[in-house]
Amino acid sequence: MTRVGIVGATGYTGAELVRLLSAHPGIELTVLTSRQYEGVRFDHVFPAMAGRIDLSCEAFSVNTLCDKADFVFMALPHSLPMQYIPELIHRGKKVVDLSADFRFNNPAIYESVYQSHVAKDLMKEAVYGLSEVYSDRIRRASLVGNPGCYPTSILLPLIPLIKKNLIDLDSMIADSKSGVSGAGRSLSLTTHFCEANESFKAYKIGTHRHTPEIEEILSEHAGKPISISFVPHLLPITRGMLSTIYVNLNKKISAEDVRGCLHSFYARRPFIRIRPENQPPDTLYVRGTNYCDIGLKLDQKNNRMIIVSAIDNLVKGASGQAVQNMNIMLGLEETTGLTLPPSAI
Amino acid sequence: MTRVGIVGATGYTGAELVRLLSAHPGIELTVLTSRQYEGVRFDHVFPAMAGRIDLSCEAFSVNTLCDKADFVFMALPHSLPMQYIPELIHRGKKVVDLSADFRFNNPAIYESVYQSHVAKDLMKEAVYGLSEVYSDRIRRASLVGNPGCYPTSILLPLIPLIKKNLIDLDSMIADSKSGVSGAGRSLSLTTHFCEANESFKAYKIGTHRHTPEIEEILSEHAGKPISISFVPHLLPITRGMLSTIYVNLNKKISAEDVRGCLHSFYARRPFIRIRPENQPPDTLYVRGTNYCDIGLKLDQKNNRMIIVSAIDNLVKGASGQAVQNMNIMLGLEETTGLTLPPSAI
Amino acid sequence: MTRVGIVGATGYTGAELVRLLSAHPGIELTVLTSRQYEGVRFDHVFPAMAGRIDLSCEAFSVNTLCDKADFVFMALPHSLPMQYIPELIHRGKKVVDLSADFRFNNPAIYESVYQSHVAKDLMKEAVYGLSEVYSDRIRRASLVGNPGCYPTSILLPLIPLIKKNLIDLDSMIADSKSGVSGAGRSLSLTTHFCEANESFKAYKIGTHRHTPEIEEILSEHAGKPISISFVPHLLPITRGMLSTIYVNLNKKISAEDVRGCLHSFYARRPFIRIRPENQPPDTLYVRGTNYCDIGLKLDQKNNRMIIVSAIDNLVKGASGQAVQNMNIMLGLEETTGLTLPPSAI
Amino acid sequence: MTRVGIVGATGYTGAELVRLLSAHPGIELTVLTSRQYEGVRFDHVFPAMAGRIDLSCEAFSVNTLCDKADFVFMALPHSLPMQYIPELIHRGKKVVDLSADFRFNNPAIYESVYQSHVAKDLMKEAVYGLSEVYSDRIRRASLVGNPGCYPTSILLPLIPLIKKNLIDLDSMIADSKSGVSGAGRSLSLTTHFCEANESFKAYKIGTHRHTPEIEEILSEHAGKPISISFVPHLLPITRGMLSTIYVNLNKKISAEDVRGCLHSFYARRPFIRIRPENQPPDTLYVRGTNYCDIGLKLDQKNNRMIIVSAIDNLVKGASGQAVQNMNIMLGLEETTGLTLPPSAI
Repeated sequence: MTRVGIVGATGYTGAELVRLLSAHPGIELTVLTSRQYEGVRFDHVFPAMAGRIDLSCEAFSVNTLCDKADFVFMALPHSLPMQYIPELIHRGKKVVDLSADFRFNNPAIYESVYQSHVAKDLMKEAVYGLSEVYSDRIRRASLVGNPGCYPTSILLPLIPLIKKNLIDLDSMIADSKSGVSGAGRSLSLTTHFCEANESFKAYKIGTHRHTPEIEEILSEHAGKPISISFVPHLLPITRGMLSTIYVNLNKKISAEDVRGCLHSFYARRPFIRIRPENQPPDTLYVRGTNYCDIGLKLDQKNNRMIIVSAIDNLVKGASGQAVQNMNIMLGLEETTGLTLPPSAI
Repeated sequence: MTRVGIVGATGYTGAELVRLLSAHPGIELTVLTSRQYEGVRFDHVFPAMAGRIDLSCEAFSVNTLCDKADFVFMALPHSLPMQYIPELIHRGKKVVDLSADFRFNNPAIYESVYQSHVAKDLMKEAVYGLSEVYSDRIRRASLVGNPGCYPTSILLPLIPLIKKNLIDLDSMIADSKSGVSGAGRSLSLTTHFCEANESFKAYKIGTHRHTPEIEEILSEHAGKPISISFVPHLLPITRGMLSTIYVNLNKKISAEDVRGCLHSFYARRPFIRIRPENQPPDTLYVRGTNYCDIGLKLDQKNNRMIIVSAIDNLVKGASGQAVQNMNIMLGLEETTGLTLPPSAI
Repeated sequence: MTRVGIVGATGYTGAELVRLLSAHPGIELTVLTSRQYEGVRFDHVFPAMAGRIDLSCEAFSVNTLCDKADFVFMALPHSLPMQYIPELIHRGKKVVDLSADFRFNNPAIYESVYQSHVAKDLMKEAVYGLSEVYSDRIRRASLVGNPGCYPTSILLPLIPLIKKNLIDLDSMIADSKSGVSGAGRSLSLTTHFCEANESFKAYKIGTHRHTPEIEEILSEHAGKPISISFVPHLLPITRGMLSTIYVNLNKKISAEDVRGCLHSFYARRPFIRIRPENQPPDTLYVRGTNYCDIGLKLDQKNNRMIIVSAIDNLVKGASGQAVQNMNIMLGLEETTGLTLPPSAI
Repeated sequence: MTRVGIVGATGYTGAELVRLLSAHPGIELTVLTSRQYEGVRFDHVFPAMAGRIDLSCEAFSVNTLCDKADFVFMALPHSLPMQYIPELIHRGKKVVDLSADFRFNNPAIYESVYQSHVAKDLMKEAVYGLSEVYSDRIRRASLVGNPGCYPTSILLPLIPLIKKNLIDLDSMIADSKSGVSGAGRSLSLTTHFCEANESFKAYKIGTHRHTPEIEEILSEHAGKPISISFVPHLLPITRGMLSTIYVNLNKKISAEDVRGCLHSFYARRPFIRIRPENQPPDTLYVRGTNYCDIGLKLDQKNNRMIIVSAIDNLVKGASGQAVQNMNIMLGLEETTGLTLPPSAI
């Protein structure tokens, strides 16, 4: 049984990995690292897990990690993973990195929005972990750069339409809304209960660092440079992300044609659910699950397609997709450990 | 002192009128009607108001209303006001109607999305109550059709830009998000706590009845028929509405130019607050107030302007603007009774 | 494999049964009934379940139910189950009833707070489904009356202390707080988002119908009639229940002694988690799970023990405990299908 | 017109003072101090106040403060006010301190739960600012120690009953629940949105520092040392506090008698609203207001009175009562600036 370690286990994406992996039948969780909680039992940091996990948090050490784990999830802030991962790969480990460090093909783009990159060679080997789109490459990868939450919610519905040349590439607008857990467990006024509760706002309008990530992948599929208007907003909910995407159509086609395009692209992809027209997605329908629900509506008068996608930002938008990628990398069934039943409320 | 009646006082917009008018120094609240709570003290229906109001709810009667009130707010579902208002106007009363019945100039548009109209003559006399834009007409009006909440949040930022011919009229998209109180006090699964809490969704995509209301007013200012893509969403908050509006620019202009256009259009308009670039609007900043906060950001790469406006859907989006219109109709200072201090949280 | 039916599958406890049973490895879900949604696919009523269940809702019919199911969950409002269950039992089915109809031993008590009972004989055969306390009886039962949510949260910590004669039986006070889902999916102003959000209140003070249910069970364990002050409150959260219980101690004993009493009573009971003193329960720690977390604190100056228990009102407080009871009745491992991993947030 | 300064204006109680005083007709706000935001316009720290206040935050300086203000609110964490206030009093200023520094008569009690006190003499002169109970002393005071939020909600209903000798002084239990704003604007995991949202928990069980504050005042009115069991809980709402109080009765009396006792004690006290039996308090009814709503229910079987009180923790529980005390100290009408209309939702 594959032994798995999580580096940065006490942030929200780390803890979500623990939740999912603690119930995963195909692997064994053997190492959890945390700088802040070194030496503390994981279930003392997160009492919800009492009785479910017997590990304590350790300081990060490459040697210990390599001794105890065959597969590693890096759940650290960007700039740290690129310092540690080359050694892990060198020692034959497989890695899914949840930061932005290995999401980009083009180092210049990464460096223009993050900072200088110290492992550019590895960057080229890394595979972008949008599971449904890149599963063939992921299967053969040693290192997967797990997608950002916003990019996941925007790319999954758009890529099939771009590949089929259905949409005007100059017209794309993504109006996205994320639950507060997307901002992580670090403290800030933005995530203070009293400032987020009963509040709704846009932030980093046109400047969010997920924009170039989205554009690099879209450009790859379009075969030419693509630009998108992307505006993130902060929702007063813990989990959930919904993107409302506006695109002009290249020709008069029906919503059913577009729905058919998505259906055929995602046939046999259990985590993509194309919604019927009268039942648009709701973040509540995907809460706690790895689903991406996609709805469509043709705005006929304006010849514009309106696409709505919903994910749980911590699951399909982060840790769930990371586990899905691990499953693919390990040759397991893609859905292993990810079939927790959804809840009506 | 003007005696004021509220027809339909126990819905949310009615109760919000009571809140605002109970502290209004220039009028006297004399009649509250409610079919459901006839004979019940208002502060038994809404215990928050205990000690603040001494009226009981009455059944609606034109005669009683005309005896007791000089000015009437109609806070009933559409289709009812058009049956009652002609008589009130005939008897010399001034009326602000919060339903859709008197918002349209063109009966055909109204009838295409609501139902047949029984007071088409009066429809033409009625003034659209977007206070900052139509104050001159409102001043002379006997009947004001108070704007919808979504139209208010979308029209206030767009009208000045359209008048200055700054934007591509074929490119307008409004992605709007509303708190649950916008759906009123009637019971439905949509507004059940467990279905709205921790949920976010789009609804009536491209089919919401506020779309033709927005388009009629925009067309008037553009001097030609205009169409807009409008998608409303439901936010898990009680009060607040935020619209994120995307428009292509006619020429290369800066966000500061657009901001200047809004500043000069709304100079001396105390309820419009143009936000600095680094402080975009937040529904929390306008909660409980009659403000409309507007932020701007130029998406230079796409030559697109991104406009964000925030209002409290029950105040500037309904009852507050209704009181503002009353003030204008009565020759009072526009802000009378509407200067309740905003709250930081 | 046991074939299972749910009567009343589209209320919240019914839907929660579907969630839990859809992932239960030891049974097969074969019938879902719903008066309101007859003929509608279950995943159209609850889109969260799309791709996870292929059943449509049926009208209730004893014959169909008996043909298709060996085991039946009744998730109907009280007064209905007592009309249907006798026939089901007569035909050899095993039944867990989630209403109050079969929770009481004494028909007079039931009738004093609900209505007249039409199956009093069966009432005496039914076993009260507080799983950890009555597992021996449950194992042999054909009919289990599943406990109320408030009683579950109050009885689990109190019964061991009463059996050990540690507490003054005249001093018991339970101050309980429940999430809104406890009120069910029926529409009411109380559960309207705008009336529950940002609100907190007590209700049915001293008159809630769970009081006699609690008192009957406590009296059984005390060997004499017992009375308790019980005040329920409504929390603005979807799921979760916390009871803060105040009891005077019979003698000077430490919190550790009381904790030890609970530990030994609930040894080998995986769903009861006794919390360490510095980590009191939080509804968030048990959300979506079948756990009951119990914390203790001695108020030395007043010689009073303060006990805090937390459950998810829909799981351990309703459907989870119902499944636990089914497991016991079917000779399965008590935890089967109930080991979904808890979530940190 | 009295010139007023606020020391610590950018915490939540400070900002709430600004909200209330910005609309107060009898004073002029002249100084706001903030260590963190020195030099920043107040409406940049709290954009809600844009257009409503023209002051910038200053560093704290006794000289500047004394030059610019006649009346000072101290909204700093405890231990700081006692260092600054003696000099302010010496220079003839009147002061309301919102910290715990001047709430106690007995320095030993203060020092046992806070830290050593450096202004013990002044402590004896300071008046406890429970406005309705101590208005005569407040009227003559130079320094008022503004009560804690929990004590306010517990003392207001209990004092009249103790004075009338209606309750068993050994039986008092207060189960209190507070909105998150009670924890202030400082960052902590407890107030992180994701940890507070959908959560409910008890904290500092039996050890909260408001306990001795409550007990000192109760003891004064009882004429002997009194002890109470007090358990605070954290509610996932921004504003609001509800205390459910359990007391055994000295003799058989009715809820109406107790209600009458409260009514006569608080006659002509506009901020105390005694609720009818069928309409218990709700935090929503007092949100944003200075009201304390009190409900009563006799638990006849147990001869126990159940009292429920609701306040807005930031208004009557802090800044509103502070303004009320200022009004009394300045000889203004007690309600001046505090009559903002309550909101139904």
